[in-house]
Order: sequence, then structure tokens, then C-alpha cells
Amino acid sequence: MREVKVGIIGLGNVGLGTLRILAENAAQIELKLGFRLSVRVVCSRNPAAKQLPDAFRDVPRTSDWKQVVTHPEVDIVAELVGGTTVASEIVQAAIANGKSVVTANKELMALAGAEIWDRAIAAGINLAMEASVAGGIPIHAVLREGISGDRIVALYGILNGTCNYIMTEIERCGADFAEVLAEAQRLGYAEADPSADIDGADARSKLAILAALAFGERITPDDIYTEGIRRISPVDFQYAERLGHTIRLICAARQSKQGLVLSVRPSLIPRGTILASVQGAYNAVWVRGRYGEDTFYYGKGAGPEPTGVAVVSDLMRVAREIRRGSPERVSPFAHERLGEYRPIPVETQKSAFYLRFRVKDRPGIIATLGRILADRGISIDAVLQLPSDSKDDLPFVITLERSREAAVREALEQMRTLDFMVEDPLAMPMETAL
Amino acid sequence: MREVKVGIIGLGNVGLGTLRILAENAAQIELKLGFRLSVRVVCSRNPAAKQLPDAFRDVPRTSDWKQVVTHPEVDIVAELVGGTTVASEIVQAAIANGKSVVTANKELMALAGAEIWDRAIAAGINLAMEASVAGGIPIHAVLREGISGDRIVALYGILNGTCNYIMTEIERCGADFAEVLAEAQRLGYAEADPSADIDGADARSKLAILAALAFGERITPDDIYTEGIRRISPVDFQYAERLGHTIRLICAARQSKQGLVLSVRPSLIPRGTILASVQGAYNAVWVRGRYGEDTFYYGKGAGPEPTGVAVVSDLMRVAREIRRGSPERVSPFAHERLGEYRPIPVETQKSAFYLRFRVKDRPGIIATLGRILADRGISIDAVLQLPSDSKDDLPFVITLERSREAAVREALEQMRTLDFMVEDPLAMPMETAL
Repeated sequence: MREVKVGIIGLGNVGLGTLRILAENAAQIELKLGFRLSVRVVCSRNPAAKQLPDAFRDVPRTSDWKQVVTHPEVDIVAELVGGTTVASEIVQAAIANGKSVVTANKELMALAGAEIWDRAIAAGINLAMEASVAGGIPIHAVLREGISGDRIVALYGILNGTCNYIMTEIERCGADFAEVLAEAQRLGYAEADPSADIDGADARSKLAILAALAFGERITPDDIYTEGIRRISPVDFQYAERLGHTIRLICAARQSKQGLVLSVRPSLIPRGTILASVQGAYNAVWVRGRYGEDTFYYGKGAGPEPTGVAVVSDLMRVAREIRRGSPERVSPFAHERLGEYRPIPVETQKSAFYLRFRVKDRPGIIATLGRILADRGISIDAVLQLPSDSKDDLPFVITLERSREAAVREALEQMRTLDFMVEDPLAMPMETAL
Repeated sequence: MREVKVGIIGLGNVGLGTLRILAENAAQIELKLGFRLSVRVVCSRNPAAKQLPDAFRDVPRTSDWKQVVTHPEVDIVAELVGGTTVASEIVQAAIANGKSVVTANKELMALAGAEIWDRAIAAGINLAMEASVAGGIPIHAVLREGISGDRIVALYGILNGTCNYIMTEIERCGADFAEVLAEAQRLGYAEADPSADIDGADARSKLAILAALAFGERITPDDIYTEGIRRISPVDFQYAERLGHTIRLICAARQSKQGLVLSVRPSLIPRGTILASVQGAYNAVWVRGRYGEDTFYYGKGAGPEPTGVAVVSDLMRVAREIRRGSPERVSPFAHERLGEYRPIPVETQKSAFYLRFRVKDRPGIIATLGRILADRGISIDAVLQLPSDSKDDLPFVITLERSREAAVREALEQMRTLDFMVEDPLAMPMETAL
């Protein structure tokens, strides 16, 4: 029985995790497939320096990816390089050479996945990207096949493990953002340059991919309103707790009357919901379907082996297609063709809000702020002030009933210029729909 | 473009839920597939009495299922009848007539799924059963494709919504089992004859299917040690809470040194774990993989539309295969052929245990019980007694360190004959691995 042959490009953490699983789990993989999945060639910048599993000691190594994508025996190219420059060339060249592609590359698939899929269809090859979002959670298989019959109404994700680790650590030990970030960097949970994680760009790419899959529209990262977590402080968790909530960086995609609304932003979510129980470097996705109602998926968001499982599972699926010799296959975006997306600004939407202020205390502050809100027709739900001994930097919170975000932003713009403000007010939506 | 045609047999809740989704969601389904999925004929015992969606008003109806399985235009038969008698005939006849089969039938697939799959392979048709376990959770797609590259080490499920509803209600309001069961029956969460649910047979069938999928062995319900929930009382939840745990009917499949150990039984699970947060009629599955680590899946376990989503998603998957005209496909059990399963008795395994007694109080009880345990080399972890004013029926709890279950059962057998016992001791494992 003919085996299917794989070329692996990129021997970083994910590449080595993938090879380890392919080596150690080879017998079970063959039992499931009914044929062998073999590694024909591996490629990395300095391939001699890499320690491969014994089973692959004799597999040819190269530092020239072109040798992999043009290799006459390679059926599937696994692009595990990341980024949008060389990786893009690799994927395009693989497709041009009639190779199917498995990729773990969220940036590339978020930016250009729909175009790449169009080329894959034209070339009659397959494209798979389970590893690109939420490594250990098979959310692509779920949306593409498991619940494909449903009509998704909303999807909420915790998709960045670094941010979730930082948020739950601030919550757990009450330390400042900067302190927790430094500790996360020391432990390897955050990069030396953490901005892609903590400013939301990583989560945004992941949401672009999942929203395209769930809603069948062509979404790129620029379509998504994005705020990072730098301004979240321990006091916000104290107030959130008093309000029966916690705070997470929530990636949200939901159908509104106007269309699909997309955002990545720190948000208050009710304690006691299953999404609020996601701790540390875990990822989770909450899906609300018109028919299937609520489903929830949870697992490791990253790591060589959880992500490696996603790559290997994709390799198995694509290998089956190749053995079958059939060009028809399930789109990695669940829809054969994606529709055009017309972004809906979050400002047009209504939400309950949490506003946190730091002020120099003096009489009349609430009256002033209340007037600014009332002038725009915004109703206050509650005013909270936890005990504090600082008159010069006094934190307190106002929560708002459901209000249009544009009006809230106008009010905030006016408030920030008031002379008693120590810093700009912080606003977060309160997710009551979960 | 040729459409794929479906015949639906069984117009109960699941059949009607399926038809509603096929009608209302037709446009999106066609967008995903690139072709139409049409309903060619429906069958039920009294088809004229059923109210079908407008879109299917003119679809031919019959009360003779043979007309569906032999219908020359039907490509896929959806068997939504349930049970193991007529349903078995329907599935066999459909396969014999070259029709692919989508089924929601847990009893049939648990009892004879492997044999049915063998016939499906021989006939070159496809067989799909997402709806057979945990209706709204796409756990089949997850195990079959999403994490197929992993090696599963353990799987824990909450697979019976009736039991979970009863357990969480006892926990929430402290009412007795009988009282909560009666309320569940009144609300439609439990059947008039509730034994298949509360004695564990329903959960056992579901575990048989999931364990076969996850571990690649041919497992039938008789292979699974099963205990129901009739003996759980409010006092057990009080003690569990004191121990930092809660109680759920846990379906467990785990690899041990001896092999795969299977059980369905009420168990103590730590509070704060995500499995402990599953409330009411929801289902959940916790999977531990050698490489992907822990993943968790949650959703509605039953209901016309959540289960209908599973049926429709299967119909879409099978329809794609038919359009492709290819006999090769992914086994519904993830493995092309299942290995033989050699049951491992739970008695051979070690676990921590919770033992709850009801006794006529008098001095020396702990000494007597402690001696019986010590004689078998079993170590006590803790003895707990919550305040009680009944000297004649005093509940208390002993927890045991990890002990071989065979020894614990011997001890219990001896204890139940003691004259101070008001009723047989109740033993539950404490799941520390979660």
C-alpha cells in the first residue's frame, strides 16, 4: 500500500513537536489511516544543528526550502516557519508545484488565507490549517465539520495564552501588570518583545481566521477593532469581582442586525460562566449556534506538542485525500468561497460598560461625570468605590446600562480633559450575553 | 450541479429537529457544500399526523421504511428511529441497497457499530453517527479528525443529561433523590420510566461508542462496569463539598498498565476543575492526550435541534463523499478496523475512595471499621462527621488513600453485616487525576 510522503519546513518548537509525534505515534497513525505517513525531507536554516527523533535520523536534511517544495516524492508540505515573508513564498511555491499544504501560520492565513485557498482550488491541492489557531483545541474541525449544519450566531474566544496568563496572575496575586509581565517573560510565557501578544495583534489574527470559518466571510486583521491589556490593573479585578465578574481578553464575533461585529478587547465576563474558569495559558472558544445552542471548547493554546497534534491530524486528513486521488475536499474555511465582509464599527453597537477612573478626590466629581453621561442619554447602572487611603489618586468605577459605544466614547473624550482626572478613564464592555 | 438526496426515517423530536434545520438553514448549507442537500422522502409510523416545515410540505411521506431504503433516488438514509430492533433492520437494509447511513442511534451503534461498519466498508457506503453521543457536542469529529494525531490516555464524560440535572439539583437545593427525580419527570428532563438514565445504561452505551473511537477497540456496553445514581443523597454533596469536591455520574475510559479500564459510576471530582462546573442537562467530555494534553468539550447533550445539528452535519459530510464518488472515507470509529477488547475489571485498579455510612451511633464504630480496613492493608485518609441530631441514623464519611478496589469491596462486604449499619455503605471513587 503506497505511503504518503511529507516534507517538513521549519524545525522550531512546532516542527520538532510534529516530528516527535510522527515518530512516537507512527503505529497508531498507520492503524487509523490504513497506510503509512512518512517524512521524506526536513528543512531548516541550520538543519545539522537539530536533534531529530531516532526514527528520522536518516531523513535527508536541507537548508533550502525550494528543495522541499519541488521534491518529486513529497506529497504534502508542512509549512512551520511562521511569519508572512518566506512562509508566503513557501506556500505559493508548494501549491504551484502541486503539493498539498499543511500550515500552522496564523499571520499568513489571517492576511491571505482566502486567496491562498483560491489558488489551492485552482491547483487541485488541499490546504489545512488546524494548527493556526488555539493549537491544542481542534476548533477548525469543529467549525468545518462537527457543527457545520448549524448557523453560528456568536463566537467568543480566549485565544492568547500570554494575555490570559497575565490576566489570571494579576487576579490571583494582585501584582501590577508590569511585574506580572516581567515574571511571564522570565518563565517563557511571554516574549522579550511582548507587544504582539499584549497589544492584541496575535489574538486578532486568530479571530480573523475563526470568524471567516464560522461566518463564511473574507475577514482580515484590519477589519477587527483591537485593544490590548496594558491598562488593566489589580484594582480592576477587585471592582470586577464586586460586580460578580472577572476580566479576560475576549475575541468576539457576533451577528448583529447590521452584520458581523468583530472585536478583540479586555472585557468583563460573569463569574460562574465556564469561560470565566479559563485560567493561565489555556485557550477556549465559546460558540453559540442558532440550533445547537451553546458549545464550549478548551485546551492548550500553544506548545510544541499540542500544536504538533494539530499539524499531524491535518497531515492525516490531507494524506487520506491524496490517497483517494480526488480534488474535491472540504474548504479550510468551511465555505467553498468566502463572501465579502463589510466591517461594522463597534461604535454603532450597544453594550453595558465598566468605566474606571482615577481622580484627585474633591466634592462634585460624580455630579460632573453624571451630567456628561446624562447629556448623551447614557444611564448609570451603579457607582462603586472600594476603600482607599489615597485622596490624590482615588480609583472608582461607574457601570453603565446598555449604551451605544459612540456616545460612551464621546463622553469619555470630554471626561479626560477634566482637571481632576489623574489618567484617562478606562472603559471595558460587560459581556452579559455569555 | 447534482444535488444529494436524503430519506429520513423517524419523525420524532430528532427527525423534526433535523427537518427544521434542513429547511431553515438550506441556503447556508448549500453555500458550504457547493451543492444542494434535498429531502426526497420521509417516513414515520403515522406520517400524515406530522407537521413538517413548509419547505417540505410536498415531500412524499410513507409509513413503510422499506420504501425509503429501496428508493432509487435516495443517496443517504437518516435512521432516526432509535432502539435496536426495527432500527437495525433499517440500517442493514439501507446498506444492502447501497445507501449511506446517518444514524443518531446510540444503542445500536454501541451494540453492533463495529459489525455495521464492516458491512458498510464491504458495501462501499459511508456510515456516520455524530448524533449518537452527546448530541450538541461534536465529539465524534474531534476524536475522528480534530485530534486524530494524538494518543488518547484518558477520557472522562458527563454523558447523561438527566443524571446531571438530578445531581446538580440535589446539590443546589438539598432535596432528596426521589423528590428531584419526580420534579425532573414533571419538567420532561426524565422519562416516566427513568431507569435507562438513572441506572447508567444510557451513559454506558455512549461510553462504549466514545471509547471505541478514542482507543480503537471493539467495546460493547457489557464490557463496562456500571453503577447508577439512585443511592446519592444530599448528605453526600455536603460531605463532598467539605472535601473540596462535587459528585457527578462520570463515564471514564483510561489506559492503565493492564489495558483500557472502563466505568460509569457516580464519582467525586474536585471543585474548581472545569468538569465540576457542568450544571443541569449539559454534557461534557474531558480528553487527556499523550501529546495534546487536556482538552474539554461542552454542550447540550440532547434536544431536537442540538441533535439535529449533529445529524445535518453528518449528512453534509456524507453528501460530500457521495458527490466525490469515492469509496474511501474516514471510519466513524476513527480506526479502519477495531482491535479486540479484553475487559480489565475495575476491581484490579487503585483509586482513592469516599465511603459513606449510616449507623446507629455507639462507641467503637470507627475502631471496628478501621480494623476491617487495616486488616486489608487499606489506609484511611480522613474521617468526617458533620453535625447531626439523629443518633439512630447518623451519617459519616471515611475517605481512603489510593487502594485496590477489590480490597475495598471485601471490606465493604464485611462491614455491611455489622449490627450498627442502618444501610449498606456507599462507596465512590475520588477522581484525583482531573
